[in-house]
Amino acid sequence: MRANYTMQRLFVDADLTPGTVVEAAPNQAHYLLNVLRMRQDSELLVFNGRDGEWRARLAASGKKSASLTLIEQTRPQPVLPDLHYCFAPLKKGRLDYLVQKAVEMGASALTPVITQHCQMHKPGIERLRANALEAAEQCGILAVPPVHAPVKFDRLIADWDPGRRLIFCDESAETHNPLTMLQALETDRLGLIVGPEGGFSDAERRALHALPFVTAIPLGPRILRADTAAVAALAVIQATIGDWR
Amino acid sequence: MRANYTMQRLFVDADLTPGTVVEAAPNQAHYLLNVLRMRQDSELLVFNGRDGEWRARLAASGKKSASLTLIEQTRPQPVLPDLHYCFAPLKKGRLDYLVQKAVEMGASALTPVITQHCQMHKPGIERLRANALEAAEQCGILAVPPVHAPVKFDRLIADWDPGRRLIFCDESAETHNPLTMLQALETDRLGLIVGPEGGFSDAERRALHALPFVTAIPLGPRILRADTAAVAALAVIQATIGDWR
Repeated sequence: MRANYTMQRLFVDADLTPGTVVEAAPNQAHYLLNVLRMRQDSELLVFNGRDGEWRARLAASGKKSASLTLIEQTRPQPVLPDLHYCFAPLKKGRLDYLVQKAVEMGASALTPVITQHCQMHKPGIERLRANALEAAEQCGILAVPPVHAPVKFDRLIADWDPGRRLIFCDESAETHNPLTMLQALETDRLGLIVGPEGGFSDAERRALHALPFVTAIPLGPRILRADTAAVAALAVIQATIGDWR
Repeated sequence: MRANYTMQRLFVDADLTPGTVVEAAPNQAHYLLNVLRMRQDSELLVFNGRDGEWRARLAASGKKSASLTLIEQTRPQPVLPDLHYCFAPLKKGRLDYLVQKAVEMGASALTPVITQHCQMHKPGIERLRANALEAAEQCGILAVPPVHAPVKFDRLIADWDPGRRLIFCDESAETHNPLTMLQALETDRLGLIVGPEGGFSDAERRALHALPFVTAIPLGPRILRADTAAVAALAVIQATIGDWR
């Protein structure tokens, strides 16, 4: 929890190779020069989600434009577990949180899913992407998961690739322990679906249980809020069959 | 995630036995009658952290006072794992969140710990208690963990009962997987300490590593924010040696 607060991180689109000079976007230049008040030649870290993390030196021209000269790669690009995170959008504050946490926990793709008890039916996709990016910049995550357009629950499971194991958190499960179930899974192509605060509807729950590619896992004896269940589920998944092993 | 939104829950101090009539506190009466606009004879759930959960019937007299007649116990009082949760207070929003999540995840006691990189040195203890209570009411948690007064890091470890295993999340660990370490622990008297956003200082980290009753666990290859690490750590602890087994 320390390393991610030492040096400013910036996401850029450009390919990153030694000596490359990257022009900061206008809003990024404004942020670096006028908000953070970074000086000429100060150093920061840049990443593009493909080429790892690079140390770069700032060159400002005036108050409105800045360029970054790449010095050296500080970390190689990591490979994320193939874990597709599907979530019912929550109310604003918690929705931002949900996306940030999923990125920290190493989800490789995010898809908002509109369920029957969903509180929000038209989540702002650009805001979700900004949240994902912000979490990556703040926490030093080099792989920024794509945020896909919202999809209806029925469509999601109708189009689901049966070769990808879909895990869902089932508060009505009779056991409490998710570890043994997860350890028994033999695929490394995974999906996790987390319901809204109101939970899945009975119809949605029945539909999930009826699908051959679905694994229902319990998350202990207490009922968890949706955003808590998301982080807890991602933790036990990463620890058993993800990249915490 | 459904069950906790069906019926209003209320924490009371009184002992709960069949037929007991509980006078709601003035602020509770106001909340039930004027905010929720609950009617005469409507039912809700009450708990006191000792006697389980009870279905109760509301009797209002005017707009300012209300009493609750206990009908039947709906759930017995659960026994929580002995898991003492120690956390460095974060900035306001995240601090509230941290406490709510710890309650949902089944911490049996909460203690704010003031560390060197702490952002907040005087957390409002009453606010933290209110957060714990709110989380319990909203999520149907029957055991409300006590929130102890803040203590300095050095004092906490100096006074720590060596018979209680203290787990801390060590981002500098060389392995990624916390499960094997946790499964090897043979005590069921546990503590978890989570550092501030800035992480533990080198001195604090050295002190923890030097203690015979401390177990340092990794939480994967990514650096997690303090509040994410807290939920993730509680999840793997509960799943391996807590009450998710």
